[in-house]
Amino acid sequence: MNPASLASPKIDLERLLARIATLAEVGAIEGGGVCRLALTDADRDGRDLVVRWMRELGLAVSIDAIGNVIGVRAGIEDGPPVMTGSHIDTVRTGGRYDGNLGVLAGLEVVAALNHASVVTRRPLAVAFFTNEEGARFAPDMMGSLVYVGGLGLDDALVTVGIDGTTVGENLARIGYAGVAPISAPTVHAFVELHVEQGPLLEHEGVAIGAVTGVQGIHWTEFTVEGVSNHAGTTPMALRHDAGYVASEIARYARQVARKLGGGQLATVGHVTFEPNLVNVIPNRVVFTLDLRNTDADVLAEAVQRVFAHADAVAAEEGVRLSRRSLADFAPVSFDERIVARVESLARAQGHSVRRMPSGAGHDAQMLARLCPTGMVFVPSVAGLSHNVAEFTRDADIRTGANLLLALLCELANN
Amino acid sequence: MNPASLASPKIDLERLLARIATLAEVGAIEGGGVCRLALTDADRDGRDLVVRWMRELGLAVSIDAIGNVIGVRAGIEDGPPVMTGSHIDTVRTGGRYDGNLGVLAGLEVVAALNHASVVTRRPLAVAFFTNEEGARFAPDMMGSLVYVGGLGLDDALVTVGIDGTTVGENLARIGYAGVAPISAPTVHAFVELHVEQGPLLEHEGVAIGAVTGVQGIHWTEFTVEGVSNHAGTTPMALRHDAGYVASEIARYARQVARKLGGGQLATVGHVTFEPNLVNVIPNRVVFTLDLRNTDADVLAEAVQRVFAHADAVAAEEGVRLSRRSLADFAPVSFDERIVARVESLARAQGHSVRRMPSGAGHDAQMLARLCPTGMVFVPSVAGLSHNVAEFTRDADIRTGANLLLALLCELANN
Repeated sequence: MNPASLASPKIDLERLLARIATLAEVGAIEGGGVCRLALTDADRDGRDLVVRWMRELGLAVSIDAIGNVIGVRAGIEDGPPVMTGSHIDTVRTGGRYDGNLGVLAGLEVVAALNHASVVTRRPLAVAFFTNEEGARFAPDMMGSLVYVGGLGLDDALVTVGIDGTTVGENLARIGYAGVAPISAPTVHAFVELHVEQGPLLEHEGVAIGAVTGVQGIHWTEFTVEGVSNHAGTTPMALRHDAGYVASEIARYARQVARKLGGGQLATVGHVTFEPNLVNVIPNRVVFTLDLRNTDADVLAEAVQRVFAHADAVAAEEGVRLSRRSLADFAPVSFDERIVARVESLARAQGHSVRRMPSGAGHDAQMLARLCPTGMVFVPSVAGLSHNVAEFTRDADIRTGANLLLALLCELANN
Repeated sequence: MNPASLASPKIDLERLLARIATLAEVGAIEGGGVCRLALTDADRDGRDLVVRWMRELGLAVSIDAIGNVIGVRAGIEDGPPVMTGSHIDTVRTGGRYDGNLGVLAGLEVVAALNHASVVTRRPLAVAFFTNEEGARFAPDMMGSLVYVGGLGLDDALVTVGIDGTTVGENLARIGYAGVAPISAPTVHAFVELHVEQGPLLEHEGVAIGAVTGVQGIHWTEFTVEGVSNHAGTTPMALRHDAGYVASEIARYARQVARKLGGGQLATVGHVTFEPNLVNVIPNRVVFTLDLRNTDADVLAEAVQRVFAHADAVAAEEGVRLSRRSLADFAPVSFDERIVARVESLARAQGHSVRRMPSGAGHDAQMLARLCPTGMVFVPSVAGLSHNVAEFTRDADIRTGANLLLALLCELANN
C-alpha cells in the first residue's frame, strides 16, 4: 500500500446512501425527517451507530470530555491528521442530510481508501462534534468551539438546555462524557462537506459551492415583562403589554434586515407568551432573535438598531426588557488555498463550481481557528433545510463525496 | 313573615368575605389567585361547595343540561323569579372576585333575608353559569348564552377545548350534566354584581358603577402557514415566515385601536410558534385577536381594517392565512329603569355612583335578551383582573352587596 496505489479509490454512492438512510431511521419523524436533539436518547442511538461504523472501518475512535467523537485512520507518517467531519445532531424538525452527510461522506472516503488499499502520507480523521445545532443547548457549534479552546469545558458542561437539564448531566447519561484530553489539538487541515441549506446552487444550476467563509451569527433572547390584565377593561393607553412589545420588535428586526440589505438576515424563531390566553394581556413574553451577516460592521449595525428600538418601545409601553446573549460569532474567512483547490478540483472532475459564503454556522468555522480550513457545498433542493423535506439529489451527493475524497487525499499526501 | 318585616335585612360582610376566601381555596395558585378553568376538577370542587351552600340556605337547586346551577328562594307568590348571579369559573391566572363575588353576594342576600325572616313577593334566584370565561372552551359566556337560547345545546356540548376534550364529556365527567330543561326560561329581572376589572372607579374615587351596557366582543383565531427553513441561509426576499406575518398583524391591530380611539380595544393574548426554534423560520403560527367596542360600527370597522391588512401582509409574504371566529357578540344596552334604580339607590345609601359601560363580557348581557337586566360594579384596585393580584376592598364589597340586596328586594316586591 502506498499513496500512488494502482487501484484509484472511488466513492460507492449506494453504500453512502445506505448509511444516510440507516442513520435517518434513528429519531425518524413524519415526512421523512429526523429529530435527534443533542444529547437525547435519539442522539445517543445515532452516535452508537456511527461509532460502530467507524470501528468497522478500522478507525481508532476517541471521545473527548464534551462528547466529540474522532475516528483516526493511520497514515504512513505520524503527525497531525487531515480531518473531515461535521455533526449528527439535528433540530427538532430536521432533515437527514444536514451534518450527517459530512460525517458519512467522511466514512465513505475511508471505506473507498480501504477498498483501494490506499494509505495516505498523513493520518486522516473523521469527526462528529457535539451539539452543532444549538436547538437544545446554546450556543450552537458547542463541541467544536470547546475543541478549539473557544469555550471552557466547565462552562460548556453547566449549560442549561430548554428542558432545564445540563450538557454535563446529559453527556454522562448517554455515556458520551469521554476521556480524551481537549487541550491543544493539532490538525493539519480541516474540510467539511455540507448541504448548502439555501437555494443558490440549485437556482444557478451549479454543482459545487467553494465556501469562502461563514457569516457572523448573533443570537439574543429577549424577555419582556409587563402586566397581565383583562383584555376588555384596560384602556389601550394604560396597558403594559409584553406581547405587543415583542411583536413590534420582531416586525422591526425584519424591517432592519430589509433596509440594510446586503445579505443581512433577521429571524424570530422562538416565542412564548404567558399566560397565553385569548382575553388576558400577556405579562411575560420570551423570544429569540437570530441576526446574521458576512459583514461584521453591518451585523453590528443591525444589532445596535434593533436593540435601540427595543429599548425605546419597551420604555414607551412601560414594560421591563432584558436581553441574554445566546451566541455571538464574528464572520469567518476560510483558507484561500483550500478554497482555490475546491474550485480547481471541481473543474478537473468536470463540475460547475462557484465561490460563496455560508449562510449557516458550521463546525468548520471553529476549526478555522486551529488550522487551514475549507468547506464544500452541494445543492439543497428548493433551498430547504431544518425541515423534514430537506433533500439533496443522489448525483450531487456523489459529486460532493468524490470531491471530498480527492481534496482529502491531496491534503494528506502533499 | 311579610315584605315589610320589622327586622331590616343587612349584609353580613364577615360572612360574605369568609365565603369568598373559602371558595378561593379551591384551585388556589401562587400569589393569592385562583385557577378553576371551566369543567375541570377544580371547577367541580368549586361547584360542589357553592351548591352545598345553596342547599344550606334553603334554596331549591336545579342544574340544567349545560351545567348552569340555579338556586331558588320561594316568594309569597309563584311566578318568574328575580334573578342574580354570575360565574365561578376563572381564567388560568384568575383572581378570587371575578364572577365569584356576584354569586356569593347573591347567597349573602339570601342569608340576610333568611336571618331577617323576610320573604319577597316574587321568588328570588341565585345562579352561576357555566364557562363564562371561555378560557378553556370558546365562546365565553357559554352557559348563559345557551340558557337564553342564543346557542343550541347540542352545538355547545360538542365544543372542543384547548385540551382536545369536549364540553359534553367534561360536564358528564364532573357530574354537572343536569336534567333541568333549558327551553324558554322566564325571569322577571336579572341583576349581576361584579368587580369592574378596570381602573375607572378607583381612579375617580367612585364607589358604584351603574352599568349601562356591555361592549361588543369579537374574537378571532388566526392560523398562518408558511415554510420552515434555515434562518441563516434563506434570503429575506425568499422567506415565507409565519412568525413575521403574525407579528405584523398583532402590531397593526394595536395601531388600529389607537387610531380609532373612542374606547376601541385590541389584544393579542395567545400565540404559538412552530417549530419554535431559534434558528428555524416558523412555518405555523396560531394566534388570537380580541377586539371590543361599545360602538358596533366602530368595532366592525376595526375588524375590517385588521382583516384587510392581514390578508395583504399574508399575500405579500406568500403564506396561507385562515381565520376562525371564536366569539362575536354585538354591544348590549341594559334596561334604563334598572340603571336609573342603581343610581338612585346608591345615592340613597350615601355612595357616589357613575354610569359606565362594561369593558368585559358578562352573563348579564345574555340575560338581557330575556328580561330587564342591569349590573352593579364595585372598584378593582389598580384595575387589575384576570391576574392573581386582583383585589377589591372589603368596604367596597359591603357597599356593592348592600346595594344588590336593596335592588333585588325592590325588584322582587314591586
